Amino acid sequence: MIEPRLASGLRDYLPKDMILRQKMFDVIRASFERFGFLPLDTPGIEKEEILTGGDPGFNKKIFRTSTTGTREFDLALRFDLTVPLARVVASYPNDIPRPFKRYQTGKVWRGEKPQAGRFREFVQFDADIVGSKSMMADAEIISLMYETMKALGFDEFLIRVNNRKILNGLAAYAGFEQAKNEVVLRTIDKLDKLSWDGVAEELRRSPGDRNDPGAGLAELEIEAIRRFLDVRGDSSKQTLQNVRSLMSNSPEALEGVSELSDIVDYAEALGVPDDKFVVDLSVARGLGYYTGPVFETVLTAMVSLGSVFSGGRYDDLVSRFSSSSLPATGASVGVDRLYAAMELQQGKTSAASTLTKVMLLDFAPECRILVQKAATDLRRAGVPTEVYLGQEVTLKAQLSSVIKQGVPCVVLIGNDERLSGKFKVKDMAKRTQVEVGPEELVDLVNRLLRDE
Amino acid sequence: MIEPRLASGLRDYLPKDMILRQKMFDVIRASFERFGFLPLDTPGIEKEEILTGGDPGFNKKIFRTSTTGTREFDLALRFDLTVPLARVVASYPNDIPRPFKRYQTGKVWRGEKPQAGRFREFVQFDADIVGSKSMMADAEIISLMYETMKALGFDEFLIRVNNRKILNGLAAYAGFEQAKNEVVLRTIDKLDKLSWDGVAEELRRSPGDRNDPGAGLAELEIEAIRRFLDVRGDSSKQTLQNVRSLMSNSPEALEGVSELSDIVDYAEALGVPDDKFVVDLSVARGLGYYTGPVFETVLTAMVSLGSVFSGGRYDDLVSRFSSSSLPATGASVGVDRLYAAMELQQGKTSAASTLTKVMLLDFAPECRILVQKAATDLRRAGVPTEVYLGQEVTLKAQLSSVIKQGVPCVVLIGNDERLSGKFKVKDMAKRTQVEVGPEELVDLVNRLLRDE
Repeated sequence: MIEPRLASGLRDYLPKDMILRQKMFDVIRASFERFGFLPLDTPGIEKEEILTGGDPGFNKKIFRTSTTGTREFDLALRFDLTVPLARVVASYPNDIPRPFKRYQTGKVWRGEKPQAGRFREFVQFDADIVGSKSMMADAEIISLMYETMKALGFDEFLIRVNNRKILNGLAAYAGFEQAKNEVVLRTIDKLDKLSWDGVAEELRRSPGDRNDPGAGLAELEIEAIRRFLDVRGDSSKQTLQNVRSLMSNSPEALEGVSELSDIVDYAEALGVPDDKFVVDLSVARGLGYYTGPVFETVLTAMVSLGSVFSGGRYDDLVSRFSSSSLPATGASVGVDRLYAAMELQQGKTSAASTLTKVMLLDFAPECRILVQKAATDLRRAGVPTEVYLGQEVTLKAQLSSVIKQGVPCVVLIGNDERLSGKFKVKDMAKRTQVEVGPEELVDLVNRLLRDE
Repeated sequence: MIEPRLASGLRDYLPKDMILRQKMFDVIRASFERFGFLPLDTPGIEKEEILTGGDPGFNKKIFRTSTTGTREFDLALRFDLTVPLARVVASYPNDIPRPFKRYQTGKVWRGEKPQAGRFREFVQFDADIVGSKSMMADAEIISLMYETMKALGFDEFLIRVNNRKILNGLAAYAGFEQAKNEVVLRTIDKLDKLSWDGVAEELRRSPGDRNDPGAGLAELEIEAIRRFLDVRGDSSKQTLQNVRSLMSNSPEALEGVSELSDIVDYAEALGVPDDKFVVDLSVARGLGYYTGPVFETVLTAMVSLGSVFSGGRYDDLVSRFSSSSLPATGASVGVDRLYAAMELQQGKTSAASTLTKVMLLDFAPECRILVQKAATDLRRAGVPTEVYLGQEVTLKAQLSSVIKQGVPCVVLIGNDERLSGKFKVKDMAKRTQVEVGPEELVDLVNRLLRDE
């Protein structure tokens, strides 16, 4: 006998979870389709060089895969849906519209060390616009983030935006070497987790520190970064005005400010309210491929959960696979984090454990043909219907097992009912019972379910 | 630059395909839910021993996987959704209802040699009932197969059923050794592909044949198999009656006949018509874990496509993982085959290439705020809406690019419209144009789309 164990870092979603998760998927999909995004699907397996970009410094842990008996060591499982999108755009230049607005959902895998709350397989739900340089595209992604969060029933969230171009000017402004920019940004990205003191310590720590290399910045440089992160006006507009004065000697930063300024205007026109949207200079987003605006969404009552919906502009990714570079921007729902939040918010107990509306009991074998005919009538009328298939044989025992499942409507067809030609229909919530002939069953059930 | 290539045996589904595929998924899901099946999700990665059952003779080619930098060589990608279901049932005995009616969809992988029309990753959509020995459960699966095929718009199909218990009696009936049963059944399973002469040849060929080992049966034994396969009455009932006489000395075969006889009665009660359902003794189904009734669905106009929806009863699979054995039955939609058939039937040209109902042009930068406000109004009213984000800048060029996409409704907001306070709305099919104020836009668009 084999122990029915999952590999570490993986998990199952039982029906109680899945009913809620699928509702979430349905809402996200409908929201994305309202913005005109089109569905795409790509394989879970890609050639490894597609994923790593052939970069010898690629340091993300991924799953490699090969078939038994062969020696293909060049395959790996995708770690996001963005790199496959870039491959698709480069592969089929004539088969996809421009701009290409696509959504995609599916599993992605990361070979991280398993630890509490960290998983190695998770579902993403992405929307991207490839082929538009306009900040209208970025603003549309932000509007999509807002409308989707609202559609999912969230009210306490904040979309934070920044621009990599401003962050790229940070080295010149604070006086540290440009080469340290990546490590500084990665450290700033931990502000939610570490708070400023922790971030400052990591910026200070020597890059030669064996256990935990830092950025090795001087106090004056760290102080300048702190001043930069503190630039905050009463509004996003004011914040941008302050950055413009502070970094007036960096053309790149000023371009970043001007992009964000457009985004702020467009987001307002798109109906994203002020209290749900803010320019925040501490937002860095880890991924190396971002080149312009970056976005993230935190649940203000659950900040420690991290960002649940984030993304940014990545104008250079397609050029990894194609001589014609294409600008792109998009965002990805962290479905599993969002689901964890929904569970916390709505309470797991409220989740339904069945989708079935009618259960036909099966306590008189002579009546099975009648029972099955009635089941088909109901199903063909669109009513989710089950015939009792459990171990219990008596009416009473079957009924009490059905009560546990929470099915709203139960139909009894035994010998009495067969002879009288009238089925008994029980409304489980109201504890009432009605008798109807076979031909009236569907109508009666529909009426009961409407009143529910 | 990296060539944007897919690994062999894998493929992308672009939006034109995915729009149709998602419709298919939606129909299947709705059909399964009408029967009271509940959603489940399990990881793509499983421990290898879960998949192989620790069987040293396991000969299916699978994908092994491990993370970079670690030495976990015990992980593999699932090759179906049935084995993970058995693991789940054994893992959470107290968290799932009994009987457990679950559906699951997702990618599965097989490490087969890539060849034309053979893929290494595909999507399955399964429904199973775990915990019921009753033939009512098997009949329900057949009814599900019938109703789902109808819901998908198929009319020319045939559900063929058989019983492993009858096939297990074949050795005794035809006089060959029981040990040869597996190879004989696997050969019979090729009847659709090879026709009888090919099957007979393979049954005759020596097991020692290096290139293509056969079953090594004698002519008399082959002749008996032919007689067995020819047992066909005018109806499924008659066929079963003939088998009953033919194999009256095999208690197991007689049990199989009696099971199928119940299924025939129940399927009729469940409204599966005679011309869509037949007992066919040549149906073997390859998978080793089947123990009782087996089912398959062929498209009668495309028999060479193979079975598009098949399954059977597997009463011993859960006992691989648990001391308490649980009977189970179910079936799996071959989504990719069915999609291929739908494409052939409906023609790829009929597939929509957009889901967008309204396109707002963007030819006057001063009007962008108005355009974006209107887009949000429409989206919030549930209308799939895009703002033009392409490269063209003139009204005319934008319009002709939109015409190609087949969006039914186009809105123009330029300076004339801004000053007059009236937007122009074009019905692209009727080639008409109406002017409305911003507050009437949603109503007008909804009216136009209803009339479409």
